[in-house]
Amino acid sequence: MEKASYTDMWENLNLDIEAHEGLLEVLGKFYGDIYMSQQGRLQGMEYLDFVLSEVHGLRIQELVEAKEQGRKIIGTFCVFVPEELTLAVDAIQVGLCAGADAGTEAAETVVPRNTCALIKSFIGFKMAKICPYTESCDLIIGETTCDGKKKAYEAFGEMAPMYVMEIPQRKEASERALWKAEVMRYKEELEKLTGKTITAEALKKSIKTVNDKRRALQRLNTLRAAVPTPISGRDVLLINQVSFYDDPIRFTNSINTLCDQIEERIAKNEGIVPEKTPRLMLAGCPMAVPNWKLPYIVESSGAVVVSEESCIGTRNTRDLVDESAETIEEMIDAICERYMKIDCACFTPNDERLENIKKLAEETKVDGVIHYSLMFCQPYTHETFKVEKALADAEVPMLAIETDYSMEDVEQLKTRVEAFVEIIS
Amino acid sequence: MEKASYTDMWENLNLDIEAHEGLLEVLGKFYGDIYMSQQGRLQGMEYLDFVLSEVHGLRIQELVEAKEQGRKIIGTFCVFVPEELTLAVDAIQVGLCAGADAGTEAAETVVPRNTCALIKSFIGFKMAKICPYTESCDLIIGETTCDGKKKAYEAFGEMAPMYVMEIPQRKEASERALWKAEVMRYKEELEKLTGKTITAEALKKSIKTVNDKRRALQRLNTLRAAVPTPISGRDVLLINQVSFYDDPIRFTNSINTLCDQIEERIAKNEGIVPEKTPRLMLAGCPMAVPNWKLPYIVESSGAVVVSEESCIGTRNTRDLVDESAETIEEMIDAICERYMKIDCACFTPNDERLENIKKLAEETKVDGVIHYSLMFCQPYTHETFKVEKALADAEVPMLAIETDYSMEDVEQLKTRVEAFVEIIS
Ligand code: SF4
Ligand code: SF4
Ligand code: SF4
Ligand code: SF4
Repeated sequence: MEKASYTDMWENLNLDIEAHEGLLEVLGKFYGDIYMSQQGRLQGMEYLDFVLSEVHGLRIQELVEAKEQGRKIIGTFCVFVPEELTLAVDAIQVGLCAGADAGTEAAETVVPRNTCALIKSFIGFKMAKICPYTESCDLIIGETTCDGKKKAYEAFGEMAPMYVMEIPQRKEASERALWKAEVMRYKEELEKLTGKTITAEALKKSIKTVNDKRRALQRLNTLRAAVPTPISGRDVLLINQVSFYDDPIRFTNSINTLCDQIEERIAKNEGIVPEKTPRLMLAGCPMAVPNWKLPYIVESSGAVVVSEESCIGTRNTRDLVDESAETIEEMIDAICERYMKIDCACFTPNDERLENIKKLAEETKVDGVIHYSLMFCQPYTHETFKVEKALADAEVPMLAIETDYSMEDVEQLKTRVEAFVEIIS
Repeated sequence: MEKASYTDMWENLNLDIEAHEGLLEVLGKFYGDIYMSQQGRLQGMEYLDFVLSEVHGLRIQELVEAKEQGRKIIGTFCVFVPEELTLAVDAIQVGLCAGADAGTEAAETVVPRNTCALIKSFIGFKMAKICPYTESCDLIIGETTCDGKKKAYEAFGEMAPMYVMEIPQRKEASERALWKAEVMRYKEELEKLTGKTITAEALKKSIKTVNDKRRALQRLNTLRAAVPTPISGRDVLLINQVSFYDDPIRFTNSINTLCDQIEERIAKNEGIVPEKTPRLMLAGCPMAVPNWKLPYIVESSGAVVVSEESCIGTRNTRDLVDESAETIEEMIDAICERYMKIDCACFTPNDERLENIKKLAEETKVDGVIHYSLMFCQPYTHETFKVEKALADAEVPMLAIETDYSMEDVEQLKTRVEAFVEIIS
């Protein structure tokens, strides 16, 4: 890593160099403890280790170079922003959700204390000037999903170039009309930003690119369902996290290579853990980098995570955009339809999520589910009750965890997770 | 009060008679302490005292009788439900927002602990079977405003007949189209429920009825702006609260009579408090019956409340529906337009609220503003920061209060309010 040249780059991005160094140090140590300590990891994970070690280095350099070539960088906080459109104007889309306690005190001067950790974190990262992704963005796309984000974007918009999409709250005809209007408005905004017009050819290609990424992750999710599971939950979470930062084509190729290795492992009936290890699904709020707290607790408690029902997990990869469309109009419709399948808790009543969870629990042969919500996240905390009921009907045990990014409750969580693992073993 | 006959009525409504008696007792005592103890009240307030004393008695009897005549009762939790349409099918609309800690423990078995008191209260009232309004409803209208209510309606819908309207989150053309579709859908739902078809004549009449109610409250709000103020803030809050329960025509007449008395008082330059009493505005979350906690604290701390910027206050009465429309289509458009002026914090960015607050502060000549939000109410707690900034620009001091329905923090709030009153005196 050419440290010196990165420092120049970070300075140009106006980062607080000292605070940023501190963050990288903590992150590096945390990564070492949680990831590098694992035994028997697949060789293909080296790519992920490399990407993560260069998450603020090489990848940012790529973004800077892309900007120099006139390409635009689009930041997002939600899987509702159609990457297909972003790629069709040759822009780069990066996720800005943040998963670490940083700048919290500063954040609490602009958003309420009773705000979920994810929101405080992205605001805190901005205010502390430690996120090179945020600083690289030409435009940041917010969305009216939960109250917390919707209102936080108002404060965030005073610090960064924001554009807000409306996501409806039901999925009937008039809401679909609104959603289509919003997708069209986003298309126009991208065209204005880049001076490019989206062609049918470009859009068709980008639909394929994003579908290919989803297909690679679907393949991974199917393979990991093997008994014994060939890969740890931590590693798959990391892969899902990296999917929001990395170049989509390079990422897809790497995941397919990794999947080839997994197939070999499965053929030999090898697992990352013994066959009898209790298998768990994590369901709920997205876990943004470097929020590895709960998976690490679970996997240090004698269980293994085999599915993530979250937006940094299967919710983002389950559905593809129909590739048969030929005209722009048809492709936009296909995009709209695909995104309206997202079963985010921000919708009401969102019963399809319950069906999807039950299906995923069956497919990945789990012994139990841990429902995870960030403290003060009203949509997912409300759904905890419904998910518990649906799983009880399906005779799948569930543990509800509500937490944040601090490390204070780790021991307490570990005790609860261990007790749960004992029950389901 | 024919106690015996009410008990039969309450039993028929399936109330928990014992728990309900307990509630009435507490309510009566609370009302006595906060309202009946006031000196120099206007004679017209006797009507309000009567209505409140019969809030679970005579008024419920009226509803029961109306139901016997085939009229339908519609319950609401938000000022977005167009009463004009409800009245146009000869139905009765009642507010179900609740303002007391009751059934909280039960409520927390179906909604998260980190839910605002208003939501826990209406769920708690239902689960404890102590609200004769909720039990009288033929249909209860929810709305997708805040996350808390939106998701709580899912749980509530398992206990009561629910119908949910989508309220958009921005106010641009495509959101207005969605809103119009939702208003039309509500119209159809009402027609289905009652078997009536809304005529232009009926709608024109109900637009006038609801506007008349708003005009009476506007008149009251203009009159109370006199120095010294002729009426206490508590009394005006009560009037606003009763406006959600009472028969609209009878209510309007009573308020106009009260306003006549206020005019006499003003002519004599009499006030309910001395001229130099610090004047405050309360801004923020609605205060549902019997949530009189903060106004009582303020008015026992040497200040007087002269404006309520909330949905149980000026947000609900500021704008009228244009009465010049003649066709149903035109009237629906006028209704849609009027309701889209509501500056609820659920919208983003909702800057018009800041303008409205500054204007009201000036019109009612306040010395300061208390911004009130219920704990865990994300929309209003977020806006606290913006309101504070807007008021600072206008050189109006502001105090931010975040609380719930419990009495535990009364002393602490009193200390803070007294200190604030001292500063602005
Ligand atoms: S959980 Fe909902 S709001 Fe969050 S990223 Fe997913 S779709 Fe967006
Ligand atoms: S975790 Fe919940 S509250 Fe936080 S951003 Fe996501 S949906 Fe919103
Ligand atoms: S504050 Fe908003 S959600 Fe509440 S009643 Fe008013 S408009 Fe409805
Ligand atoms: S007070 Fe806030 S959280 Fe509670 S119902 Fe009203 S808008 Fe929703």
